[in-house]
Amino acid sequence: MIQYLENIKHKDSKNFFLIAGPCIIEGEDMALRIAEKVIEITDKYNIPYIFKGSFKKANRSRVDSFTTIGEEKSLEILKKVGETFNIPTTTDIHENEHAALAAQYVDVLQIPAFLVRQTDLLVAAAKTGKCVTLKKGQFLSPEAMQFAVQKITDSNNPKVAIIERGNSFGYTDLIVDYRGIPTMQQYAPVILDVTHSLQQPNQNSGVTGGRPELIETIAKAGIAVGADGLFIETHPTPETALSDGANMLRLDRLEDLMQKLTRVREAII
Amino acid sequence: MIQYLENIKHKDSKNFFLIAGPCIIEGEDMALRIAEKVIEITDKYNIPYIFKGSFKKANRSRVDSFTTIGEEKSLEILKKVGETFNIPTTTDIHENEHAALAAQYVDVLQIPAFLVRQTDLLVAAAKTGKCVTLKKGQFLSPEAMQFAVQKITDSNNPKVAIIERGNSFGYTDLIVDYRGIPTMQQYAPVILDVTHSLQQPNQNSGVTGGRPELIETIAKAGIAVGADGLFIETHPTPETALSDGANMLRLDRLEDLMQKLTRVREAII
Amino acid sequence: MIQYLENIKHKDSKNFFLIAGPCIIEGEDMALRIAEKVIEITDKYNIPYIFKGSFKKANRSRVDSFTTIGEEKSLEILKKVGETFNIPTTTDIHENEHAALAAQYVDVLQIPAFLVRQTDLLVAAAKTGKCVTLKKGQFLSPEAMQFAVQKITDSNNPKVAIIERGNSFGYTDLIVDYRGIPTMQQYAPVILDVTHSLQQPNQNSGVTGGRPELIETIAKAGIAVGADGLFIETHPTPETALSDGANMLRLDRLEDLMQKLTRVREAII
Amino acid sequence: MIQYLENIKHKDSKNFFLIAGPCIIEGEDMALRIAEKVIEITDKYNIPYIFKGSFKKANRSRVDSFTTIGEEKSLEILKKVGETFNIPTTTDIHENEHAALAAQYVDVLQIPAFLVRQTDLLVAAAKTGKCVTLKKGQFLSPEAMQFAVQKITDSNNPKVAIIERGNSFGYTDLIVDYRGIPTMQQYAPVILDVTHSLQQPNQNSGVTGGRPELIETIAKAGIAVGADGLFIETHPTPETALSDGANMLRLDRLEDLMQKLTRVREAII
Repeated sequence: MIQYLENIKHKDSKNFFLIAGPCIIEGEDMALRIAEKVIEITDKYNIPYIFKGSFKKANRSRVDSFTTIGEEKSLEILKKVGETFNIPTTTDIHENEHAALAAQYVDVLQIPAFLVRQTDLLVAAAKTGKCVTLKKGQFLSPEAMQFAVQKITDSNNPKVAIIERGNSFGYTDLIVDYRGIPTMQQYAPVILDVTHSLQQPNQNSGVTGGRPELIETIAKAGIAVGADGLFIETHPTPETALSDGANMLRLDRLEDLMQKLTRVREAII
Repeated sequence: MIQYLENIKHKDSKNFFLIAGPCIIEGEDMALRIAEKVIEITDKYNIPYIFKGSFKKANRSRVDSFTTIGEEKSLEILKKVGETFNIPTTTDIHENEHAALAAQYVDVLQIPAFLVRQTDLLVAAAKTGKCVTLKKGQFLSPEAMQFAVQKITDSNNPKVAIIERGNSFGYTDLIVDYRGIPTMQQYAPVILDVTHSLQQPNQNSGVTGGRPELIETIAKAGIAVGADGLFIETHPTPETALSDGANMLRLDRLEDLMQKLTRVREAII
Repeated sequence: MIQYLENIKHKDSKNFFLIAGPCIIEGEDMALRIAEKVIEITDKYNIPYIFKGSFKKANRSRVDSFTTIGEEKSLEILKKVGETFNIPTTTDIHENEHAALAAQYVDVLQIPAFLVRQTDLLVAAAKTGKCVTLKKGQFLSPEAMQFAVQKITDSNNPKVAIIERGNSFGYTDLIVDYRGIPTMQQYAPVILDVTHSLQQPNQNSGVTGGRPELIETIAKAGIAVGADGLFIETHPTPETALSDGANMLRLDRLEDLMQKLTRVREAII
Repeated sequence: MIQYLENIKHKDSKNFFLIAGPCIIEGEDMALRIAEKVIEITDKYNIPYIFKGSFKKANRSRVDSFTTIGEEKSLEILKKVGETFNIPTTTDIHENEHAALAAQYVDVLQIPAFLVRQTDLLVAAAKTGKCVTLKKGQFLSPEAMQFAVQKITDSNNPKVAIIERGNSFGYTDLIVDYRGIPTMQQYAPVILDVTHSLQQPNQNSGVTGGRPELIETIAKAGIAVGADGLFIETHPTPETALSDGANMLRLDRLEDLMQKLTRVREAII
């Protein structure tokens, strides 16, 4: 996928690429500070980097969960991050009209896992000509993702990647099936979402739980089996984040992780 | 839920209620003939009946699957069925704007399983004032459905029911957890979707498989544990249906099933 | 299976049959009192009845869990129950030599779920000439049970039945797949174990949990789909039981359950 | 675990250790040839090595599956392999009496996954004073293995390790949960069984299937997350093997795998 992104750095480094940023855009200053720090780290380890932030959370368990600081405002911040640092950016879309809207601000459109079977949304995303990342539904097999990928490529857009984020395992747990990574690489590059793979859904509180202490474990396995990219939500202080604090990586721990993963990457190429 | 439907018959019969019809509206004549036959049967067994038909399939595995004979055309047929026989009708919606649109034609709006976490869609449906049925996602616990129900009731619409349709069990199978029926009845009436509970997803062909020979088994268990309603897709000739032929009940076998299930219902009330 | 048991009552009643008793034999007096009470109820509803009690628990999570009041002592009590009331009895065996030993005391030998793939144990049980009940492993498909059944019948013993007790669903839950009941009836009569189907395994305490309030739900669904028999552990005071108190049915609630289930049975035959 | 094995080589190499050999002992010549070849490879990469072979298959799906060339004969061959090359050996046991028997021939006793809850078997193994490896049941959580480990250590035997081999995922698949490796390392060293993790159980034929092309993927992820050891069944010609041909690694592909895994290991220590 990254060969299609003009403004991505370290394109030829042979390292994995990184999609990282806060779960949701909480403000301009915070977005810029996170991007700056991640760029410093990814430059050090020659990691191609795409800044990530949601402009709206559309599928929270509870109607009273925080959803956005403003849709346009968030998209403007994403654009500003991209322009300030000359890096590509990405956000997730939930409705057909979001595709053309978000495409004005970001370089990569992400389709959420629950929506990856919605043909019109995928086609709308594909038609923007932007890169499209498809999250594998927790209810889908790796093999079934070939049909989602086809919906993009049949719309004359070859710029597609798949994001793995775990499979339903009982009601309250997810397991990543690492066999799926080489399987899905037959169809498109594969990115491992270490943040959402560690979710513990269906908690009685209505707020999804997590096990962030396992981020390194989940990520190392992914890089070892050859994942093309990694998706990590990160925040300076996850415990005060407006969304998904349970799983985000503390920003000051990102460098240690990237250093370790770069070593694993070097061992397999 | 059925207490809110003015034009439903057998409201006080104490029997379960039935949502039935073809997977997708294939034409006016066929829709009327199915409705007529189901009404004949449900009248015989005092079963409150709601006619069901999709006006569009939005989440097929493959982009080349059949999706609609025309959205407005299909909605007009649904309306005509309701008016011809003076019965309530229902269809499923996939985008926020579909809520107000479909509400002009049908009495009950159904939210698909994959979309049951999309807050805006649920709120849009609730705001029409119509009854709303929420399919439980294959990835959700019974307990988690309370939050989906709340999204409807918090929008000042008490007319809500839940449709059970099985849980992800490995990649290619679903299992109904009958413990979930009494659990979810704490939040709203529960309807068992025997058709989609028997799906076998993620088949390599990209076309969902099924085990229709088990419809009676799945349905009897549901009625025995006290499900309020049943959802069945039926077709005169499933093998020639334009969609989901693998699981629909042959229409001429519906009466035998209703007769058996009515006996089970009588045994538990 | 019950056609092979000479001393079973109500053989021709067309009702389901019942295997019931305490999880483990705690003493003679208690065993006799439970049997007497269950006989009173099963006589009232024409239910063929087999008394059940383990003489030893061999597969507890923790080494400090209670296992037996004495192996021979427990087997003697089982024999006494059978002789006192002229009813068949059953117990579970865990080692090859247990087969011939237990066969001297009881009429039906039960193979535990974890051991149902141990060929030598199955063959040893079959060779006693006694009836053999095979618990379906939580890790086995209904179809796979045909091979376990064959191990009995290939040993020239046609007296075999299968006991369903749920499937692994994530780490801490089990789900009964009711589709499996008709599937397995192609190979042998099927008994639904409502007690262990409600277990919640792998609790952090090392003691298996449960949801006994769902016994009626689980049992009704089983009878509705045509299960041949039911397996229920019952105890006068489950909260003081020496083993598995979390799931046993309080003995004074058994009659209400049998009455309701008999009604469901009558509705399907 | 390997610190307890006197005759193991490369003990201080910091590389992972390897348990490898044929599924079942098919003959002396073949056992010696496999051992010789694996030793040549493990010497090259400084991998501590334990020869593995079953002396009997006790839990085959079908009664007509091959089980042994002779129990004592197989054990003698295991002993001969150990003496010939001065390396430790291991085999799996299925009955309490097997513990003391096998302990006369091998250095490490392996408890099969289905039997890991059988207290008497674990205690019998522990009491031999030999190293004991416990296969995690497909139905057990990583956390639940602490109780199995305790059954060994409470018998005054500290020489225990855990073997991961995947979790039930639907009826016909297994998934390795790599989060479980660091979890179980809190209790004992953890070995990843790449052969059985790739099984596809409950095939309609009654013969377990597999996906051996994924051995490298499964193994790399295990080494990357820090597994202490690896378990691999290997055979010169898997397609003619007497047992489990579907998943064994072709012996001539072992060196390439060890070379790659050693590189991953070096990247994480």
